[in-house]
Amino acid sequence: SRSINLAVVPGDGIGQEVVAEGLKVLSAVLPQDVKLETKEYDFGAQRYHATGETLTDADLEQLRRHDAILLGAIGDPSVPSGVLERGFLLKLRFAFDHHVNLRPSKLLPGVATPLAGQPEIDFVVVREGTEGPYTGNGGTIRKGTPHEVATEVSVNTAYGVERVVRDAFERAQARPRKKLTLVHKNNVLTFAGHLWTNVFNRVAEEYPEVTTDYIHVDAATIYLVTDPARFDVIVTDNLFGDIITDLAAAVSGGIGVAASGNINPSREFPSMFEPVHGSAPDIAGQGKADPTATVLSVALLLRHLGYDDEADRIDAAVAADLTERTGKPARSTSEIGDALAVRVAG
Amino acid sequence: SRSINLAVVPGDGIGQEVVAEGLKVLSAVLPQDVKLETKEYDFGAQRYHATGETLTDADLEQLRRHDAILLGAIGDPSVPSGVLERGFLLKLRFAFDHHVNLRPSKLLPGVATPLAGQPEIDFVVVREGTEGPYTGNGGTIRKGTPHEVATEVSVNTAYGVERVVRDAFERAQARPRKKLTLVHKNNVLTFAGHLWTNVFNRVAEEYPEVTTDYIHVDAATIYLVTDPARFDVIVTDNLFGDIITDLAAAVSGGIGVAASGNINPSREFPSMFEPVHGSAPDIAGQGKADPTATVLSVALLLRHLGYDDEADRIDAAVAADLTERTGKPARSTSEIGDALAVRVAG
Ligand SMILES: CC(C)[C@H](C(=O)O)[C@@H](O)C(=O)O
Ligand SMILES: CC(C)[C@H](C(=O)O)[C@@H](O)C(=O)O
Repeated sequence: SRSINLAVVPGDGIGQEVVAEGLKVLSAVLPQDVKLETKEYDFGAQRYHATGETLTDADLEQLRRHDAILLGAIGDPSVPSGVLERGFLLKLRFAFDHHVNLRPSKLLPGVATPLAGQPEIDFVVVREGTEGPYTGNGGTIRKGTPHEVATEVSVNTAYGVERVVRDAFERAQARPRKKLTLVHKNNVLTFAGHLWTNVFNRVAEEYPEVTTDYIHVDAATIYLVTDPARFDVIVTDNLFGDIITDLAAAVSGGIGVAASGNINPSREFPSMFEPVHGSAPDIAGQGKADPTATVLSVALLLRHLGYDDEADRIDAAVAADLTERTGKPARSTSEIGDALAVRVAG
Repeated sequence: SRSINLAVVPGDGIGQEVVAEGLKVLSAVLPQDVKLETKEYDFGAQRYHATGETLTDADLEQLRRHDAILLGAIGDPSVPSGVLERGFLLKLRFAFDHHVNLRPSKLLPGVATPLAGQPEIDFVVVREGTEGPYTGNGGTIRKGTPHEVATEVSVNTAYGVERVVRDAFERAQARPRKKLTLVHKNNVLTFAGHLWTNVFNRVAEEYPEVTTDYIHVDAATIYLVTDPARFDVIVTDNLFGDIITDLAAAVSGGIGVAASGNINPSREFPSMFEPVHGSAPDIAGQGKADPTATVLSVALLLRHLGYDDEADRIDAAVAADLTERTGKPARSTSEIGDALAVRVAG
């Protein structure tokens, strides 16, 4: 019989609330014969304050044993900026080699967008997750003096670029439009830019059916607001991916519905799924958070584990729920979760 | 008697056309007693193909003698990506220490924006121009092999950050709302991020009237489309500034009206003024380019040289022209230039 052994990290702020709804929908969608086991972990601000720990080697040993990880949100104003981000989120992505950071954007009919004219938006960003300016390489000399120098080193390898570019070509090939756009800044960041561009062009030869193009990251932000329909699959560097996926989320229904997967395609390590939004401490504990992004992250998780039908059912339930929201009164976090659980079970 | 000794670099693509209109408006706005001398330089793709040169030491010696530089656009598909960008544009910014890269964004009533609901947009981005990931620091080993490693080093100094942060505080202080936002990614790029944040907070103490806040660059792209009215003055790093000013241009009337100044506030070297748009080779030579961004760059140039009244007259002429465009047939590059020249002279 089948089983899913899931690590659950509610985390900080609204993390608890949204993860509860994600699990509710997951239980509702899974067939009877699939045994769902969950284990909750207490990572986040509270544990950091109590113990000084963010993510220990022993924690990583435990997490490794799971099939996947579902995360709510990590981050709290009481912790200095960077401590939990580098100490937990990025540490996990690097330790488990989550090199494919997958972030789909789809604007459903009737869903609010800041853009005029309700444009067609349906693309996926494949963001590199283990290299670029995120490696923590760099340092500071003469800290706090008028002569301080601080560096950040973006590290890019042919190995790291090729595997994520290849993943993006596979995804583009599997979609109806079969189009892949490389986003970088190769006219200024020429060392990294040439590596990305050369690897991209070389791998492209193996995918003659996929149409390719290249745009600079600054121009990409323009297209995301003036002509988002031009995008099908985007592959990009870790930092550019961070920036453009927040913008992509904003134009395609908002950060409340943006899901992401931190994926290790080889399955050597468990992959981690999380909403793109953060812990939103200002609305935490009030039942105001939209759990949709977490529920959609559960769908990405199911797809990664091979439960495609169940993932499709979640996507369809969310689409129906979103398109029917217009004009209705706002619902609480658990009301939205309940509605989605009913839909996927039906 | 007063005089302006201007270096003019039409450059590539639509550069020629838009610069001609910029000069037309400049001549029309200047009082009789101001002597305008211009000297044209042939930098760009053609000279590169003919001589292999982009910007020589002798060129820099000549350019130094001018009061300011007006640039159209540099860049052509016949030149490999990065050659003219690094070899001319960035070389000039670095050689003349253009550390304040000024990019105002203002959405005028009636002007088209991709955003719904015609939001209020009136802010200025102060982008650092001589540091960060733009220094060209970095390199490549094992190029073209499966073991290639390419690095890009972002270099940030207390000296460089403080002077641009100070400039931004001065600008914020002089505006009615007196608000300054630091945009960075200090939760991930912790070395550079802490330097920026610490310098920002320290300088803030000297400007008690200025309200300050901080947002991550990814979140900034969200606010730029959902709540652009929250911004008054933004100060940011070279690369983040590059990215968010293209987005800012897109939402506030388009790249056709986005002006920029590459400013050396000490006036030790001439400052350079250019439209944010590129050379747009696809529409070059057809009289289709909108010269407004260049004309607004001329206004920034005049303001930098102390001709505030003349700069105000250009801004007012452009505002009037833009708000009256709606519903009218498209005009050619020179028709728009003529109309603006008439307005500023009147
Ligand atoms: C919180 C932060 C470390 C993270 C990132 O920059 O990757 C977040 O912005 C995201 O996009 O997942
Ligand atoms: C052309 C390029 C070098 C330049 C930059 O990245 O600064 C441009 O995008 C700009 O914003 O002026």
